Amino acid sequence: MSVITLTTDFGIVDEYVGVMKGVILSVNPSASIVDITHHIPPQNIIYAAFLIQSSYRYFPKNTVHVIVVDPGVGTDRAILAARKDDHIFLAPDNGILTPILEDQTFQTLVSVDNSFYFLDSISHTFHGRDIFAPIAGHLAKGLPIEELGKKIDICQIKRISIPKPVITDQTIEGTIMMIDRFGNLITNIDKKILQTILNKSVRIYIGNKTIEGISENYSSVEFQKPLAIIGSKGYLEISINCGSAKNYFQAQMGDHVRIAGQMIHRKE
Amino acid sequence: MSVITLTTDFGIVDEYVGVMKGVILSVNPSASIVDITHHIPPQNIIYAAFLIQSSYRYFPKNTVHVIVVDPGVGTDRAILAARKDDHIFLAPDNGILTPILEDQTFQTLVSVDNSFYFLDSISHTFHGRDIFAPIAGHLAKGLPIEELGKKIDICQIKRISIPKPVITDQTIEGTIMMIDRFGNLITNIDKKILQTILNKSVRIYIGNKTIEGISENYSSVEFQKPLAIIGSKGYLEISINCGSAKNYFQAQMGDHVRIAGQMIHRKE
Amino acid sequence: MSVITLTTDFGIVDEYVGVMKGVILSVNPSASIVDITHHIPPQNIIYAAFLIQSSYRYFPKNTVHVIVVDPGVGTDRAILAARKDDHIFLAPDNGILTPILEDQTFQTLVSVDNSFYFLDSISHTFHGRDIFAPIAGHLAKGLPIEELGKKIDICQIKRISIPKPVITDQTIEGTIMMIDRFGNLITNIDKKILQTILNKSVRIYIGNKTIEGISENYSSVEFQKPLAIIGSKGYLEISINCGSAKNYFQAQMGDHVRIAGQMIHRKE
Repeated sequence: MSVITLTTDFGIVDEYVGVMKGVILSVNPSASIVDITHHIPPQNIIYAAFLIQSSYRYFPKNTVHVIVVDPGVGTDRAILAARKDDHIFLAPDNGILTPILEDQTFQTLVSVDNSFYFLDSISHTFHGRDIFAPIAGHLAKGLPIEELGKKIDICQIKRISIPKPVITDQTIEGTIMMIDRFGNLITNIDKKILQTILNKSVRIYIGNKTIEGISENYSSVEFQKPLAIIGSKGYLEISINCGSAKNYFQAQMGDHVRIAGQMIHRKE
Repeated sequence: MSVITLTTDFGIVDEYVGVMKGVILSVNPSASIVDITHHIPPQNIIYAAFLIQSSYRYFPKNTVHVIVVDPGVGTDRAILAARKDDHIFLAPDNGILTPILEDQTFQTLVSVDNSFYFLDSISHTFHGRDIFAPIAGHLAKGLPIEELGKKIDICQIKRISIPKPVITDQTIEGTIMMIDRFGNLITNIDKKILQTILNKSVRIYIGNKTIEGISENYSSVEFQKPLAIIGSKGYLEISINCGSAKNYFQAQMGDHVRIAGQMIHRKE
Repeated sequence: MSVITLTTDFGIVDEYVGVMKGVILSVNPSASIVDITHHIPPQNIIYAAFLIQSSYRYFPKNTVHVIVVDPGVGTDRAILAARKDDHIFLAPDNGILTPILEDQTFQTLVSVDNSFYFLDSISHTFHGRDIFAPIAGHLAKGLPIEELGKKIDICQIKRISIPKPVITDQTIEGTIMMIDRFGNLITNIDKKILQTILNKSVRIYIGNKTIEGISENYSSVEFQKPLAIIGSKGYLEISINCGSAKNYFQAQMGDHVRIAGQMIHRKE
C-alpha cells in the first residue's frame, strides 16, 4: 500500500482536505493518506518548509509528500515534483522545498505541466484538489515523476531564505521556528551545532530571561521551571517542566534565542 | 476498497467520531473512511446540506456519504438512504438531503428501519454510532439500500428551504452560505447564473461596500484588496487578496450579496 | 486489516500525530489507524483513562489501542502493554490503564522493555514516535505482547484514583468526568447504579439548580430546558434540549452532581 501525506494551511473546519482525499482515492483507491498537519499558519511558507523537512524521514520509502501552502494559486507559479532520499515531494514552486533541495542531493526535480494527470476542470483557487491531489494519486501508484514535466535545475526554482543560526566564538544566535501545542519553543539550532559547544555550562538568553545549561529531560528541573533540551526534531527547544514556555517567556515565532559559551572550532 | 465519508457536527475533541469509525471497521474492516468535516456548525442542517451537495462528486463512485447532523436524535424522525449519481447517501430525514434529491433524478430512496443492521443496543442520543455507522459499513460492502427499508417517494420526506438567489432584470441577490478558514465568503450564486450577466462590468454590494467586476484570480487585485471570483465550488465568492473578507466586510453567514448589472434573459 | 487507535494530548496543529502514523506505517503498511482523540486535556490522565475505557469496546477484536498522555516522558516510568477482552492496550505506566485493569480480568500484562522493537534512536521527549508507534505497528502485525517484556502483576503498576460515585440510602453523588462539544455534562454515574433507584421521581442537583427525573430523550423536555438522561456511554448525562448544559449550569469537569431519591439495596 502506498502512503501519501498532506501538509496544508486549509484547516479542518472546511471540506477542502476531505475533497482532496476524495480525488486521491478516485485515482488510487488503495492509497493510505496521512495528515501531517492542516494548520500551517496561513500562507507561512517558511513554517511549512521547516516542518516537512523535519518530518518526512519518519514515513516509509516512496511516500508522496504533498505540501499545499500556496498564496500564488491561480497565478503562473510553477508546481514542483522532486525525489530525494527515496521520498517524493509535490509542492508549489514558492520556496517550500528549499531546505530539502538546497543541499543538491536530490535525485530528480521536475516542473509539473502535464495536464493529462490533472482534473478535467481546473479552478483558479483550489489546485490542491484539481492538480496536487490527482497527481499525488498517480505518483503513489508508481508514475515516474519524469512523466509530469521536464527536468529542471535547482537554479531555476524559487528559493526562500530560511533563518539559520549565527555562530561566533562566544555565541550561537538562533530563531524560534515553531511553537507547539504545549508551548515548547522549537529553535533552528540543531544538535550538530550544539556539539561545537566546549562544555555544557552555557547560558541561554530568551528575551530578558536566562536558562543555565542544557537538560537531559523535562524532569531535570523542578516543576514549572524552564529548561533547554534537545527536542525530538533534533533542535534545541526551550520548555517548562509541566508548563508553557510560550507563556513563561512571552515568546513568539521569529524571536531570537542566544547561547553564550565557549565554542569548539573543529577543523573539517 | 470501498470509501465512506463522514460529515458531522461532532467536532474532534470528543471521541464520537473515532468510535463511529470503530463500529464501521468492525462491520467492514477494509473500508477507507474519509472525514469531510466534523465542524458543521452544531445542528445547522442548511450548512450541511450545502456542503455535501458541493463535495460528493469528488469521491469515487459507490462512496457511502454519511451525514450526521441530527437535532432530532432519539425522536421518531426517520433515517434516509438514497442512491444518486452512483453515490450513496445516509442521513436523518431532516432536510439535509433536500438539495441532492430535489431535482428528482435520484435512483433509489429508502426509509431505513431494518434493525438487523443496527447495533444490538441503541442509545437515545448517539445514532451515529448505533445506526449510521454499522449501516454505512454494510452499504460499503455492497448491501443494496433496498435491504434497509421500504422505498419511499420524495413527497414523503422532510424538506427544508435552502436560500436561492433572487434574479431580476437588474440584479442578482444571493446569500452567504459558508465562510471558510481564510475568510472567503461563499455565496449561493452559481456560475450558471453568472453566465446570464451581459458583461462583466457589474458592481457587487456587500454591506455598505462595493466591488467592481468579477476577477479571474486573487492576484488580479492589489495586495489586501477585495475581489469577487468564481470559487472552487462553482459559486461566486468574495475574497481579499492575502486577507480575510470576513473581517474586511464584517460579514456573517446569511448576509446578502447583491450583483447589479444587465442580465440576459435566455429563452430555454 | 489490523486496526490501531490513537488517543493523545498532542493536538492536531503540530505534526506529532502525523509522524507517529508515518512510523506505524513504516513497520506495518496495512495498518488502519483511527484517531480516537488528540485533544485529551494536556497531561490529564484521569480524563484519558475514563475515555478509553468507555470507547474501546466499539472497535474490532485485536485492535491495538495506543494512549500517549505522558507527563513522565524521558523519566524511568515504565510502559505497559496489556491484553483484555481481546483488545490490546499500550500506555505509559501512569495510571491510564487503571479502569481497564482494576477488575483483574485482563489476560496478559507486560512491562515493555525490549528495545529491539523501538526506533534506533530514542529521544527524551517523544516516545510516542520512538517507542509507542513502532511497537503498535508490530502488535497489529500479530507480535505477541509477551515478546515486549516480562509479565508483571497488577500490584506492580502505578494506579490512580478515578472518582467513583458515593451511594447512600438517600443520595448518589457523582462527578462530572467530561464535558463534550455540545456542552453535555457526562458523569461517572453508570446505568447499573441508576437501576438501584426505586422509582424515577428523583431530583438531581447541579450547583444551585435542580432537574426533576430522568428523561428518555432530549425532546422529552421543552426547547432549551435542562434534562438528565442515560447518555450513549452508559452514564448519566446532564443536557439542555438544543443548548449547552455547560453554559446553563456554569459547570466544570470535577463538579459534583447529586441524585436524591430512594435507593434499592439489592442483595447480591
